[in-house]
Amino acid sequence: MTDLENAVASIIAVFQKHSEREGDRHKLKKSELKELLHHELPDLMGHVSDQASLDTLMDSLDQDGDAHCDFQEFMTLVSTVTTINIFITHQ
Amino acid sequence: MTDLENAVASIIAVFQKHSEREGDRHKLKKSELKELLHHELPDLMGHVSDQASLDTLMDSLDQDGDAHCDFQEFMTLVSTVTTINIFITHQ
Repeated sequence: MTDLENAVASIIAVFQKHSEREGDRHKLKKSELKELLHHELPDLMGHVSDQASLDTLMDSLDQDGDAHCDFQEFMTLVSTVTTINIFITHQ
Repeated sequence: MTDLENAVASIIAVFQKHSEREGDRHKLKKSELKELLHHELPDLMGHVSDQASLDTLMDSLDQDGDAHCDFQEFMTLVSTVTTINIFITHQ
């Protein structure tokens, strides 16, 4: 696989590792999102340390208001994190 | 780095490898986008084999109409490809 195909496969694997733990296997509930962030984006979690911040993050991701983060909503987070990272490297 | 951090870094590296070849180093012109797709998403390129298809793809990505694909527009492509991939694996 190419580098980009590997990156795509990794993103899917990370999402599924956490979404398939409880409840709807294709969506992250809040506790699963917190667990994913804690393991996969530890730097970001420094800014999402309390329940209120986590609630705010979930609300901003949860475009369809079902109290879950589906894959497309998760990709919005990944895109934002990636865009912030490239913006930082351009400074 | 975590798996997700590695994936984010790979996506940025792939974009920069191609965007920094000619002209604006922070954007892909059409020929750079074609080159990137050819190398990194060969399966997709099977469907973007002629100039008209490439023009259509660039037009759909080029949200700000500057005839280039910037990083945020590129992430839209990556998100779409990733979402299609996870949709296929759920079938």
